[in-house]
Amino acid sequence: MTDHVHSGLVRQKTYELLALRGVSLEDIADIVLFLQKDYVPDLSTDICLESIEAVLNKREVQNALLTGIQLDMLAEQHQLLSPLQEIIEADESLYGVDEVLSLAIVNIYGSIGFTNFGYVDKIKYGILAELNDKRNGVHTFLDDLVGAVAAAASSRIAHRHRRDMEDTPRQVTESDGP
Amino acid sequence: MTDHVHSGLVRQKTYELLALRGVSLEDIADIVLFLQKDYVPDLSTDICLESIEAVLNKREVQNALLTGIQLDMLAEQHQLLSPLQEIIEADESLYGVDEVLSLAIVNIYGSIGFTNFGYVDKIKYGILAELNDKRNGVHTFLDDLVGAVAAAASSRIAHRHRRDMEDTPRQVTESDGP
Amino acid sequence: MTDHVHSGLVRQKTYELLALRGVSLEDIADIVLFLQKDYVPDLSTDICLESIEAVLNKREVQNALLTGIQLDMLAEQHQLLSPLQEIIEADESLYGVDEVLSLAIVNIYGSIGFTNFGYVDKIKYGILAELNDKRNGVHTFLDDLVGAVAAAASSRIAHRHRRDMEDTPRQVTESDGP
Amino acid sequence: MTDHVHSGLVRQKTYELLALRGVSLEDIADIVLFLQKDYVPDLSTDICLESIEAVLNKREVQNALLTGIQLDMLAEQHQLLSPLQEIIEADESLYGVDEVLSLAIVNIYGSIGFTNFGYVDKIKYGILAELNDKRNGVHTFLDDLVGAVAAAASSRIAHRHRRDMEDTPRQVTESDGP
Repeated sequence: MTDHVHSGLVRQKTYELLALRGVSLEDIADIVLFLQKDYVPDLSTDICLESIEAVLNKREVQNALLTGIQLDMLAEQHQLLSPLQEIIEADESLYGVDEVLSLAIVNIYGSIGFTNFGYVDKIKYGILAELNDKRNGVHTFLDDLVGAVAAAASSRIAHRHRRDMEDTPRQVTESDGP
Repeated sequence: MTDHVHSGLVRQKTYELLALRGVSLEDIADIVLFLQKDYVPDLSTDICLESIEAVLNKREVQNALLTGIQLDMLAEQHQLLSPLQEIIEADESLYGVDEVLSLAIVNIYGSIGFTNFGYVDKIKYGILAELNDKRNGVHTFLDDLVGAVAAAASSRIAHRHRRDMEDTPRQVTESDGP
Repeated sequence: MTDHVHSGLVRQKTYELLALRGVSLEDIADIVLFLQKDYVPDLSTDICLESIEAVLNKREVQNALLTGIQLDMLAEQHQLLSPLQEIIEADESLYGVDEVLSLAIVNIYGSIGFTNFGYVDKIKYGILAELNDKRNGVHTFLDDLVGAVAAAASSRIAHRHRRDMEDTPRQVTESDGP
Repeated sequence: MTDHVHSGLVRQKTYELLALRGVSLEDIADIVLFLQKDYVPDLSTDICLESIEAVLNKREVQNALLTGIQLDMLAEQHQLLSPLQEIIEADESLYGVDEVLSLAIVNIYGSIGFTNFGYVDKIKYGILAELNDKRNGVHTFLDDLVGAVAAAASSRIAHRHRRDMEDTPRQVTESDGP
């Protein structure tokens, strides 16, 4: 029965394809740091990387990444039917399947990530600018998906930061006066 | 500049691919009739077909159909990278990108269509049973997408039915007494 | 600073309101069992309850439940502005905000839950039939939200069942012959 | 039977509540102009207003606005149960129901609007900054919903702009050379 692709294979391929397409986990961590540093004091690259790996371990995220990167690669190799070929190759402005897949990633950590996703996607922060430059190949899906992984990792950090604050016995908050 | 694939081409290819993959507009109309006949008296196949065509004329719907059918076809031709190839070929139960694309179709006519989408997808009504039978090829995306088009067309009919009732000068409703 | 409602309070109120509105965790477990028993052999009520509690511990789920139940209660007390009052009181067929909140719950465990959500919502399984009966008060939001919690718990069980199977050293699958 | 609130009433109340809460259609048009002026030459405030009205005429949009503004008003009047009262009053960063309702609006015109929604929500453009200032009352829902209406109207303009370009008999595009 073929309904048993081992999860380990799916995860491993996800990491392989990200690397193959020029995206390192550090690139994604840069976006997460940019999004969260004003809200989480002492946020480190290591904490961002830990959160990104937790996001990348979700099957829903792996499915979206494998599918989107596959479509980017097929478009680069001119293997898609016309006009889907031209649409993806050109990153057509009326084509929104890339955003649809990205939102499925963001949703996993809840709706508070929508705003961050839209924001980094619009301003093309860091690696997103490189991916968006057509001289570097077809990355119609990947630029959005990377922004979505960063937004999801940011949401996860926000939820954990709250929990950490609540777990601290003598919590120092803005309402604590002398 | 390639960001100008003509809308007419995108629409035409959508209709072509549906036909090529064995789905007629009448097949979809059967699902719409099944979903709406209890709520809209005198609902005809023609009204269903008119609504289905309105749904199919939306660019968001065309994008989802072209992308999903393309992935089905590539999986049938063993052209995808492993393990995505095996996942789509087997219609893996943990793969939800087909549902994600379908929801993008349903959303266009609003959230009242979610329930109908889930329902026909689960009971595999009409053509959906044939598409779901692996002896008939790989239709991992298409069975969900067809259910989504039917659900969207049903929502559209529900909205129009209400408008028609409101436009009738002397409307007879249950609250009309002697 | 008021941006610090303690998570414990939010969780506790969620459980309180479910009980107050007549929904027990066992009622939800019945739906999960119905949805998953054909796919997960030896599925017990205890496993369903454990999964439901994991779903209810998510902040996104708590937010949706608190908001939806609050709107149900306000409609019951005739405290909403017209025509929102009449719309929610009547569970208007063109009102889909209840489905929108429900989908936010389902999304947390990924898109494979959409179908189950739509299905139980349509057939009004178990407690959902009681909630849908207007003689039992206004439950426009709650019936959808309970179906969504059940669908999310089902997705979580499906993901864990796969992991358990993969972790078993000598795995017996359908492809294993003598 | 109460399942027949007239659409005219729902639409009228939507416009009334927007005005009551200090949002004019011109305020929304400013956001649309900001989002689209670089992509649609000769975009006027009148075209933006026409598109905003088309968005506001959608039942899904009206439902989201009525529900969100109602919750803002109830929070302002301290009429919600604790801790939902404190959560909405404070615009709690982990509360995402406002984003969920907003996305239901954006979805109506397709996924190409996600990015614009996140962007204006993040930078708090124009009226959104005023709504976000807690000295002006509780607008936890309204600021997101107004951003969503603007993003949806922008998507609609993008789709129409393409259509207009395609309908022009002798279309001048960048690929037209001598």
